[in-house]
Parts: sequence; C-alpha cells; structure tokens
Amino acid sequence: MLPELTGATRIHLIVGDPVAQTKSPAGLTRVFAERGIDAVCIPMQVADADFSAFMAAAKRVRNIDGIVVTVPHKFAAMRHCERPSDRARALAAVNAMRRERDGDWYGDMTDGIALLAALRASGCEPNGRRALVVGAGGAGSAVVLALADAGARVAVHDIDPARREELRARLAPRKIAVGSADPAGFDLVVNATPLGMAAGDALPVAVERLDAGAFAADLVTKPAVTPFLDQARRRGSPILTGEDMFAPQAGILADFLLFSPA
Amino acid sequence: MLPELTGATRIHLIVGDPVAQTKSPAGLTRVFAERGIDAVCIPMQVADADFSAFMAAAKRVRNIDGIVVTVPHKFAAMRHCERPSDRARALAAVNAMRRERDGDWYGDMTDGIALLAALRASGCEPNGRRALVVGAGGAGSAVVLALADAGARVAVHDIDPARREELRARLAPRKIAVGSADPAGFDLVVNATPLGMAAGDALPVAVERLDAGAFAADLVTKPAVTPFLDQARRRGSPILTGEDMFAPQAGILADFLLFSPA
Repeated sequence: MLPELTGATRIHLIVGDPVAQTKSPAGLTRVFAERGIDAVCIPMQVADADFSAFMAAAKRVRNIDGIVVTVPHKFAAMRHCERPSDRARALAAVNAMRRERDGDWYGDMTDGIALLAALRASGCEPNGRRALVVGAGGAGSAVVLALADAGARVAVHDIDPARREELRARLAPRKIAVGSADPAGFDLVVNATPLGMAAGDALPVAVERLDAGAFAADLVTKPAVTPFLDQARRRGSPILTGEDMFAPQAGILADFLLFSPA
Repeated sequence: MLPELTGATRIHLIVGDPVAQTKSPAGLTRVFAERGIDAVCIPMQVADADFSAFMAAAKRVRNIDGIVVTVPHKFAAMRHCERPSDRARALAAVNAMRRERDGDWYGDMTDGIALLAALRASGCEPNGRRALVVGAGGAGSAVVLALADAGARVAVHDIDPARREELRARLAPRKIAVGSADPAGFDLVVNATPLGMAAGDALPVAVERLDAGAFAADLVTKPAVTPFLDQARRRGSPILTGEDMFAPQAGILADFLLFSPA
C-alpha cells in the first residue's frame, strides 16, 4: 500500500520496453515512502524509435525529478545526459538520471554498485578477490567495472572474443584479464549472460572446476536458482541469486535520485 | 492509501501548469481502485512552450491509456486528438483523451457533463429551465453548451460583448440568448467567472434581483462559499459550490478513460 497520490507528488520515471516486469515502480516508491518523500516511480513503456523524442520531452516536465532507464535504452540514454558520471562514460551507458540544480541532467550507471552491495551483504568483500565475470554485454560490463574499481582482480570471458576485447579496451587503463569457461583459480564467479534462463541452456562455466568455497553469483532472476547456482551450491559454494543481486537496487537508486548537493 | 504500483500498472496523465492543485491524481486513482482497475493518474507539469512536443511523445508511450488536460492546455490539446467529440469540436477544447483500439486518440470535453451531474444530484434537472451563465470563457462555454444540450433555455452574459457573441456564433444553430447581470426571470444562475476568488471582487450578478427559489451555482472553489453564493443562500436559494460542481468529475473522467467499445 502507498500513500495517496496528489497533484503535488513528485515524479520519477522508469523507461524501458517492456516495463511490466520492472521492480522499480514498487521498490523505489516504497523506499520514497519509507524516507518520508512524497514521490512515485512510474513505468513508461517507450519503443526504441520513440525514445529520443520521449526523453527530450520528459526532461522538460517540471515535476519530473528523475528517470531510471532500463533495457533497451541504457546506451541511448547516454546522449540525453548533459553530465554523465565517469563510470557511465566508461560504460557508454546510463541507468539513472536526475535533474541538477542548474537544470542539467546528471547520469550514472548504478547496476554495478548494487552488485557490490549485494556481495558485501553476503560476506564477500571484493577487494583483493580474484573474480571471473562471464558475459561482456551491458550487465557484464557494469559488473567488471564495479569489481575492478572495488579492488578485485578481474578476468572477463565472452563467447565473442571481439566483444570481450572491446570491453577490455574501453575500461583501460584498468587491467582486465582474459578469462575462459574454466573457473579454477577464482574466488568469485559471476554469470552475466542469459544462460540458465531457458531449460537446456549450456552452463556458463565448467562448474566441476569451481574452487572449494568460491562464491557463485548469477544475474539471471528467473529461475531463482539457475542450474549454475544449483550445481555450485551442491559443491558447497555460497551462492547469490539474481534476486539477491538486485535487492539493493531500489535503495541505491533512491540515494542517487534524491541526492541533494550540499 | 492506494494499492501498490508495479511495472504493469496502466498510466493516465493529467497535464497542466501548474498541477500541484489538481484533484485528479487523488480522485481518479481512487476511482480506478474502487473499480478494481490497476491504473493511476499522474500529474505532469508541462509549460506552454513544451506542450506540443510533450503530447506527441506521451501519445506514443505504450502503457499510457489516457490523458486528462487542464489549464492552460485545453485549447491546444484539440490539435492532438485525431478524433474530437462533437462537443469538443464546438468548444474547440478538450479536457480528456483516450487511445482508441486503432491507435487514434479520441478527445472530449467533460467539464459541462460534470456540472449537469452535480445539478441533478442537487435536484435541479436542467431540462426546460431558464438558465443564466455568467462568463463566456473556457469553463463558461462548456457550461452553456452542456445546459443547452440538456434542454435548458440558456442566456449568456460576459462583460466582453465580443467574447459573448463569439460563443453564441460558435454554438449555432443552438439558440443562446443574450443575458445581463440581472438574474430576474431565471431558475438557475451559474457564475463561470473568477469573480469571488479575491476579497473585494464585484458580484457576478445583482443578487437582490434573484427569483425566489432560483438555484445559484458557482465554479469558484476557493473560497468554498463565495459572496454570490452566501447572499443567494440568505435569500433562500439552494446553492451549489465549486466543490459540489466538481465532485462528479472523477467518476465521469473514469467513465470516459476506461470506456471499452463493444
């Protein structure tokens, strides 16, 4: 249940296509209410072809304070930020934007930060860990960058070597190693591919090669426990599900959206 | 309190400038919930200069089903309806739009209908009544048209004769008489001017000339009881306040927005 909406309620959007599955309208609106802020997060289903005109119009609506961006618009959103954060620039992607005092929009990419918070909540401090990230797409890139900036020694694996090399070059001068489907020698293995969503998918790594006690994490949210996590858990690994990984997201987005410069 | 917002909640907007005072976010959202519809009405504060681009973008958002339009955009909204109703066309104004099955937007002007419902709820059936409407602006025009189409014999008065004549011509072939500030001979007198909002305003009509038992209605909502209504009440007239007049609005807007063609 939510407090009553009024004409004075401040508006934040989540823009994607589709949007019916997004958690931010419920999660962010709940966090706003918990913090005593009269604001809501509203889903907006905007097709690719309409995104640019939509953003130009939405940024000028005077009671819209923030815009959360999700698939497939995280890359295109970059063009709509007058000021992207360093990590948004490195990833060429944005998942949250807020209007600054001077009217400019500031954009950031908080997906990786949410992952760090989830890891730490599970007792896995990334600093100094050897981490293998599988998948160099949008989500994988954010994870690689966040882990590297948190002090992990990160390797990335992708079935497409060109995509892997493109990511490594983009994140330079950070040193990102070349990984493989062999998880031996890593303390933390993150699946950032869609593998495990469909029955019969291949495993993202050779689970039988997982080090004893290595953390296994998966960004896939359906099923809640993927075959990769299931097998890792049977071998005694601590696991983090997709839901675990996204749990800190609403609080982190609210921190970003409600930020008031001193 | 409202049910939880989710990514699947359907969106209706109310677009105006300002919007903080609008009742639709609370009123319409409550009606949606009472009817078991997972939908909300969200305020959007859009400046005049931004309205056209905003509407073009909002109409293409796939989970927006309806748009309520308020001051100062009711006239400009006309251009954004592929299909305006006859009464919207006659008034050259629109206060509610919905997406039809074929993707076109249908627009209507329901302000006058809300007034009819309020009058009938107070025991004042307009059919056959002699009605004087003071004020030929946007609100007054909607009132004149609704009363005329409901079978009242309507006279209109405006301090600007050109504006009065423009309205009479626009509503032809309906016969709208020329009124004055003298309410003698009318069963129903409606103030559709801002007179009464500010202390020291002139009265919209010469209240001492009001017929015994004539209904007095006022569109002004602040103060709740204007000097016109106060004096009419002292003379024994039944009165309808601005709040009474707008009370049916949320239900009527919901009927319009949720309309499903058979």
